[in-house]
Amino acid sequence: MSEIITLSHGSGGILTHRLIDSIFMKNFANDIINAEDDSARLDIASGRIAFTTDSFVVSPVFFKGGDIGKLAVCGTVNDLVAGGAVPLYLSCGFILEEGLEMRELERIAESMAQTARECGVKIVAGDTKVVQKGAADKVYINTSGIGLIHKAANVSGAFARPGDKVIVTGTIGDHGSAIFLEREKLSITTDLKSDCAPLNQMMERIFDNIADLHALRDPTRGGLATALNEIAGQSDVGIVLKEPDIPVRDEVIGICELLGLDPLYMANEGKMVIIVPETSANAVLDLLTAHEYGRDARIIGEVVGTHKKKVVLKTVTGGHRVVDMLSGDILPRIC
Amino acid sequence: MSEIITLSHGSGGILTHRLIDSIFMKNFANDIINAEDDSARLDIASGRIAFTTDSFVVSPVFFKGGDIGKLAVCGTVNDLVAGGAVPLYLSCGFILEEGLEMRELERIAESMAQTARECGVKIVAGDTKVVQKGAADKVYINTSGIGLIHKAANVSGAFARPGDKVIVTGTIGDHGSAIFLEREKLSITTDLKSDCAPLNQMMERIFDNIADLHALRDPTRGGLATALNEIAGQSDVGIVLKEPDIPVRDEVIGICELLGLDPLYMANEGKMVIIVPETSANAVLDLLTAHEYGRDARIIGEVVGTHKKKVVLKTVTGGHRVVDMLSGDILPRIC
Repeated sequence: MSEIITLSHGSGGILTHRLIDSIFMKNFANDIINAEDDSARLDIASGRIAFTTDSFVVSPVFFKGGDIGKLAVCGTVNDLVAGGAVPLYLSCGFILEEGLEMRELERIAESMAQTARECGVKIVAGDTKVVQKGAADKVYINTSGIGLIHKAANVSGAFARPGDKVIVTGTIGDHGSAIFLEREKLSITTDLKSDCAPLNQMMERIFDNIADLHALRDPTRGGLATALNEIAGQSDVGIVLKEPDIPVRDEVIGICELLGLDPLYMANEGKMVIIVPETSANAVLDLLTAHEYGRDARIIGEVVGTHKKKVVLKTVTGGHRVVDMLSGDILPRIC
Repeated sequence: MSEIITLSHGSGGILTHRLIDSIFMKNFANDIINAEDDSARLDIASGRIAFTTDSFVVSPVFFKGGDIGKLAVCGTVNDLVAGGAVPLYLSCGFILEEGLEMRELERIAESMAQTARECGVKIVAGDTKVVQKGAADKVYINTSGIGLIHKAANVSGAFARPGDKVIVTGTIGDHGSAIFLEREKLSITTDLKSDCAPLNQMMERIFDNIADLHALRDPTRGGLATALNEIAGQSDVGIVLKEPDIPVRDEVIGICELLGLDPLYMANEGKMVIIVPETSANAVLDLLTAHEYGRDARIIGEVVGTHKKKVVLKTVTGGHRVVDMLSGDILPRIC
């Protein structure tokens, strides 16, 4: 097989079939995926399903803590989780740039397969297109996903209520900062890496044990500030954050200070925002901190009836400042 | 709102929200889609669902008979139909190139919405990314789709049996030829346009009335020849086509002669290949020809127990020639 992707790999003919067999089917094999029919067929128990889609254009394709393939699986899995669902099936659509090295594509496919195994989700449908050199940047991946809504997870960004606690499942800004470091080749010695992780298993334990979750959100592009502004807007409430309680790694603070950025706007790819009544907040926290991906979970603030549709930060020095939704774009192609 | 797409439209912040509201939600509004939550929630009757994904990178974005938006809806709808399903829901993931004109994006969204209405499918989830100028070519669209498998449609490319008839629902090569004309700006005066069309309503009448369909395939990239080679391979049968019976427009023949191409390999975007026992073939044909998108349907050949895994063309002059799967790529970015 040739060592780079050519336009013929996107023709739908022999080379497309070979590419699918040698890279995708080899890695994604399961009892459902079938390279030869036009649709996957799935048995679904009667009920409510969640359906979501996300395209990934992150640059660079490989970074500390992950790569575009791991990100594409985690991103869609976490979106399903944020909808209160247990993720089951993913599709993947590749747009490849002519000239992409086959071994890079294979590494990405292996990473997707490994992440899907870790999550317990199956990749059941796929598509591959190739565009000429200069009409993409290496590889873009769309993943769409189907999950089964958990019976106990009746969540929406519109369900936050005054008195609820705001929990974040760990340190913020790791993904955005790691991508930035990778891109700019800054000569900073750090262990910082993307937090890219699938949260379904950790969150399924929450769904199984906590009956009154109100809202969940995956604070990716736009960061924690944007996710909370969305919830404040949807629920017509205010959200007050206590700055000292927000977990941020020292390296992230350092990078943000250097660049004039704010960790509140930096993307996360393995974090969840959880809005839950005060009476359940500690139980949620206990379940989170017992899990690898929730070790640094913290209650960071609360929902209030004032400051409607606004997020307010009580700063370390005792001041108050309104934290708006992200405007402009601090780091393009972060995911 | 600005008149071109900027990187900030992909930030996940304020401009992303404005773009979603002003273009996507305005056009795709339905009772399920919600710009504000991370997943769509769908009630699905217990049963088997079909799930498929397709990315569209066609160039040019607008062409006679359609555009990338119409194509993105039809392509995924037709893939679901080829899986024996009644399409219900679509997701759409946009990758936009910085500098794309907002009015072009709006025109594409309107076209998607109109096609979805024609099909009776709902666009229920979406995502938008923006990449810098030169890292895409205007717009790429992924659509993924969910359909309910029709109880009478137990079809697979592996189910063709000797004695079955091969039906194509109309003239072949229209889409590929139309895109080629558009791209090369050939000064040929012709009414030829892409056949881009959603086939679900026509095929649902077939599903409702014909209980013994064997195989369906959407002959897009790679054309009729590649689709039939796939079926011959999956079913371990031969397929014999009668060249004079294959419907091809004179303009398509002319363009292919001019370019040294073969209509059998030219992409179709509104055609279905149907493999059905001889006893049901005429009933299928009657249902097809009564429908706008099946007027030119024809029986073009049959499945045989010899020539295993091969497609053989009986030519006008009485000869036989093996028609292989497409090798190489005659027209990149056809869909």
